[in-house]
Amino acid sequence: MNRPRNIAILGSTGSIGRSTLEVIANFPDDFRVTYLTTNRNVDLLEDQIRHFRPKGVVVLQECEAPTLRNLVNGTTEVLTGEHGLMEVVRRGDVDIVVSALVGFAGLKPTLAAVEAGKNIALANKETLVVAGEIIMERVKERGVSLLPVDSEHSAILQCLRGENLAQVERLILTASGGPFLHLDKDRFDTVTVEQALSHPTWKMGNKITIDSATLMNKGLEVIEAFWLFGLPPEKIEVVIHPQSIIHSMVEFADGSIKAQLGIPDMKIPIQYALMYPDRRPAAYKRLDLAELKQMTFLRPDKQKFGCLALAFKSLEMGGTAPAALNAANEVAVEMFLKGQISFSSIPTIIEETLAAHTPVHKITMEDILRTDRETRERVRQHSVTLQ
Amino acid sequence: MNRPRNIAILGSTGSIGRSTLEVIANFPDDFRVTYLTTNRNVDLLEDQIRHFRPKGVVVLQECEAPTLRNLVNGTTEVLTGEHGLMEVVRRGDVDIVVSALVGFAGLKPTLAAVEAGKNIALANKETLVVAGEIIMERVKERGVSLLPVDSEHSAILQCLRGENLAQVERLILTASGGPFLHLDKDRFDTVTVEQALSHPTWKMGNKITIDSATLMNKGLEVIEAFWLFGLPPEKIEVVIHPQSIIHSMVEFADGSIKAQLGIPDMKIPIQYALMYPDRRPAAYKRLDLAELKQMTFLRPDKQKFGCLALAFKSLEMGGTAPAALNAANEVAVEMFLKGQISFSSIPTIIEETLAAHTPVHKITMEDILRTDRETRERVRQHSVTLQ
Repeated sequence: MNRPRNIAILGSTGSIGRSTLEVIANFPDDFRVTYLTTNRNVDLLEDQIRHFRPKGVVVLQECEAPTLRNLVNGTTEVLTGEHGLMEVVRRGDVDIVVSALVGFAGLKPTLAAVEAGKNIALANKETLVVAGEIIMERVKERGVSLLPVDSEHSAILQCLRGENLAQVERLILTASGGPFLHLDKDRFDTVTVEQALSHPTWKMGNKITIDSATLMNKGLEVIEAFWLFGLPPEKIEVVIHPQSIIHSMVEFADGSIKAQLGIPDMKIPIQYALMYPDRRPAAYKRLDLAELKQMTFLRPDKQKFGCLALAFKSLEMGGTAPAALNAANEVAVEMFLKGQISFSSIPTIIEETLAAHTPVHKITMEDILRTDRETRERVRQHSVTLQ
Repeated sequence: MNRPRNIAILGSTGSIGRSTLEVIANFPDDFRVTYLTTNRNVDLLEDQIRHFRPKGVVVLQECEAPTLRNLVNGTTEVLTGEHGLMEVVRRGDVDIVVSALVGFAGLKPTLAAVEAGKNIALANKETLVVAGEIIMERVKERGVSLLPVDSEHSAILQCLRGENLAQVERLILTASGGPFLHLDKDRFDTVTVEQALSHPTWKMGNKITIDSATLMNKGLEVIEAFWLFGLPPEKIEVVIHPQSIIHSMVEFADGSIKAQLGIPDMKIPIQYALMYPDRRPAAYKRLDLAELKQMTFLRPDKQKFGCLALAFKSLEMGGTAPAALNAANEVAVEMFLKGQISFSSIPTIIEETLAAHTPVHKITMEDILRTDRETRERVRQHSVTLQ
């Protein structure tokens, strides 16, 4: 038996972070939690500290740190802020970094972890969306493994096991279609935050749930798949599959398709990424197809869900365009969640952003950070005119 | 580039044989057809000889050989009978034997091919059903590859690529359910031969089409899967999937399921077996899930389709029991096709056969040949009382 692998979970109080801890709790001999981090949920973090006894934790919002320090009373090191994140991912007692921060914030610590030679279980798709070129180059240079935690990319990775990437004809990403699959486009203006947060099949965090409702989540996944598997955009397709049972598929040159399926439970792809290439027995609920009765499929309506087409467009534009798309989307979703803009303004804002964006190619981290900052400013100014 | 591999197709004028030649015609640099065989379809065989120029052919019904000899006029060697089959599979100018004979008749030439060190593409599932123990032992001893051509077993083989068999929890074979999936059991007595030959999704030979209508085909596939993949019967399940799009699935220890899918076209699994582990581009019709719209699933009704439960029972009994099951089934199907017994008598005859059978274990070829012969005699005698 090998020694337990040391794991740092960035974003341990979020949905993926909590599921990751559930998986780890099933395999106490295989993993040891060395670092946990939260944005501001110190109550839950304190609970996680008692259960998993990490060496240290990071609280992003510095103002919350004193409360936590009182609670843990010196038993656990409490670091703060982005510099805290950057420090723990580089430490020697970390073998695997689970990158489960939300949005653009995941980029810098994930890159730092790669550069420090850590293996990555990646749930933060924005990292690849905005900086895929840089990240994949560093992953290769450092010889680390970067395994997706997204159910779609995990499905593709599983379908590609033992196969030759050169013999792949298409990646087929499935999308649930979100809560507004059958809603008339004319009524998108009336969508409330509560309606947009009611995802039909997956229980997830707020940002990704809104992204699922606009289909931007699928668009970001297309860009993520592009970087992870190195296939051109025309070989990546999306099909709507409302039951979310088939998590994604690969079509090969000989016309054969392979699919990975199961009940929607993030613990399965999380365990796959942590145990890869091993498959260890786990008592997650099993899929019973006869009980399920049916799976349905339809083509995505790219007119109705403009965000999906915009993601493909940003990939065609290349360079910094996906970073601009992502920044505009993050700000737009935030404004929608605050009730500042309508649901149908989300794709409009992103479309205007891309139209105004001149992409820089052969990108550096500076290009990405500048694109992100400038896009956010522009979208926030623009929002004033919308209100 | 390697030299083309020499192929002998046993049963080249049948459904699988013809599809195999279509596949081979797409890859003239990879394969050379050295031998073809037919039961009695000399007209089609003559046509195949002109297209593929084999070195020799075998006509099982000796009385048809003179006609063919006149047609080919000395350009191609014409052998006859079972001894002809046994001879060509052993020849030096054969690398791969495609075993596509129908029923028990496939056993002896397939075994001879294995013993002569040839790689096998196996479409004749009865070979493994009646003599799996002997065949798999010889395959191992001789170090040959035996690859399934059945779409279900090809699907499983594809799902197992790069996976560890020890981490498999279940094989899930899909079944179309045949033409009588929704027919009341009380009306099985009235089923005509024509109705039973109208398969909803696959176009196949007569014997296998009737086996699909009784679900015995799925039962034989369960036994075949048992031998091919070495998993116990309790880890092999059947689910009805009327569209025949998912060809079969594998569930792993971590709860993840992999499936292989595509439009029902035997050329895909045939090419997979011939090219294994390569996947070469082929222009077979692609699956469009959005066009398909839905896939449905239901549990098999083992009361209504007694043959499926009987196949599992024969596997539990072990030894010569599957050979008895297969012989009883072959005779019963033949009698049904001749209008001698009703559709609902097929499982009854097999059930009575298994009830009367005392299996011999640690089987030899003699045990199998005797079981086959005695069972056929008993069933034919029994049929007199049914008429």
